[in-house]
Amino acid sequence: MTGRLFVVGLGPGDYTMLTGQAQAALQAADVIIGYTGYVTWVEPLLDSQERLALPLTQETERARLAVERLLQGAVVCVISSGDAGIYGMASLIFEVLAQHGAEALLSNVVVIPGISAINACAALLGAPLGHDFAVISLSDLLTPWERIERRLAAAADADFVTVLLNPKSARRHWQYARAQDILAQRRVPTTPVGIVRNAYRPEQAIAITTVAAMGEAQVDMLTTVIVGNSQTRRFQTCMVTPRGYTLAEAR
Amino acid sequence: MTGRLFVVGLGPGDYTMLTGQAQAALQAADVIIGYTGYVTWVEPLLDSQERLALPLTQETERARLAVERLLQGAVVCVISSGDAGIYGMASLIFEVLAQHGAEALLSNVVVIPGISAINACAALLGAPLGHDFAVISLSDLLTPWERIERRLAAAADADFVTVLLNPKSARRHWQYARAQDILAQRRVPTTPVGIVRNAYRPEQAIAITTVAAMGEAQVDMLTTVIVGNSQTRRFQTCMVTPRGYTLAEAR
Repeated sequence: MTGRLFVVGLGPGDYTMLTGQAQAALQAADVIIGYTGYVTWVEPLLDSQERLALPLTQETERARLAVERLLQGAVVCVISSGDAGIYGMASLIFEVLAQHGAEALLSNVVVIPGISAINACAALLGAPLGHDFAVISLSDLLTPWERIERRLAAAADADFVTVLLNPKSARRHWQYARAQDILAQRRVPTTPVGIVRNAYRPEQAIAITTVAAMGEAQVDMLTTVIVGNSQTRRFQTCMVTPRGYTLAEAR
Repeated sequence: MTGRLFVVGLGPGDYTMLTGQAQAALQAADVIIGYTGYVTWVEPLLDSQERLALPLTQETERARLAVERLLQGAVVCVISSGDAGIYGMASLIFEVLAQHGAEALLSNVVVIPGISAINACAALLGAPLGHDFAVISLSDLLTPWERIERRLAAAADADFVTVLLNPKSARRHWQYARAQDILAQRRVPTTPVGIVRNAYRPEQAIAITTVAAMGEAQVDMLTTVIVGNSQTRRFQTCMVTPRGYTLAEAR
């Protein structure tokens, strides 16, 4: 009686952006564990699987439940939006497995990648990630703010395209403005900035602005912000980072 | 007679990792344009669509052909492995559109995101991308090597998990060893490094090593290397980066 645990990325929230592998894992599961909103979202894809829906903040509880069920021999599917491995549930699952000393079960755990907010928002903006990029969450709940600032400065100084996740929340107000300050000191004011809210959902909103004006945009936990590098150009409704530097620039 | 141009990411090379949206675009196309290997790979998904298969190096030619066909009113599908927007064909397509002054056609161009090598390799390694990360291509064909070195140092100094793409090719031999030098100066020698070759393909190979030993690994253009940050731990066959810093570390 050996259980399995699938950690599944559902993508941005459009059924056509699920992979076949993710759908197969949902079908194979005895029990689906996830945030209430995502469990509701996968309903049309399920048969008689048991559902365990937990509120947004209870990530650790969800991971513990999943490992418990795995240890009992169930086929478990933990669902995340986007990619479960990118700031998702996957690392938490492995931490809980380690706490349980459940090394022997590692080969029964499969992470199924999904279309992350990064991939999704880049596609909607055109091609902002055509070259090297850095991804930084502005949430300082688990990371000291000084470290986040150092990352913002380092990424801008080294000319990375920079993806900002979790720019603001109900409780975090000033971090996004501070990030803009750091970026504006290191980028030409007209550098394109793409702002995507609710990618591939009915309320989707896409805007392209500049480093100088990015502070005026409405952003929240469902918003991804992509700040161009020195080569990124705005082309009408699109934002494009070329795959390299022009020869003149290169030497 | 209005054409459409889909720029489609096929994912890592396993049919179960295609999205429904990518499959729909292939079906809707009049003509499929891509590198010979990828055109062969999508054969089982096609009906009578015209195929234009070009060798690996002719990216610009593929983009030009795609825009020509779009201007003629065809429904065109340009295919890339992974995610077409991440170091893929998408930015090249927009550059060719700009050269043609084809602004009016921008709304007919749709980038369809895919599971990139980054998502795929991270999933196979466990959860190395649980926190902020930087992605750097070691190819210096279009980017001056000094700039790549600066990015490697900046990413390591700011404690980003660092994804290295295109670590070596038939013509580029020394860049990977030089990258290791830069990383080894800035990371504890035992920092976990994940190395994935041919993700989700029959010849898939996964290894976890350390910053001190990463130079000994066989790497090539089909290999992705993920170097942990200060918090990344190896857990048996997995590599896990926690979603934050422990409280002791944070203050």
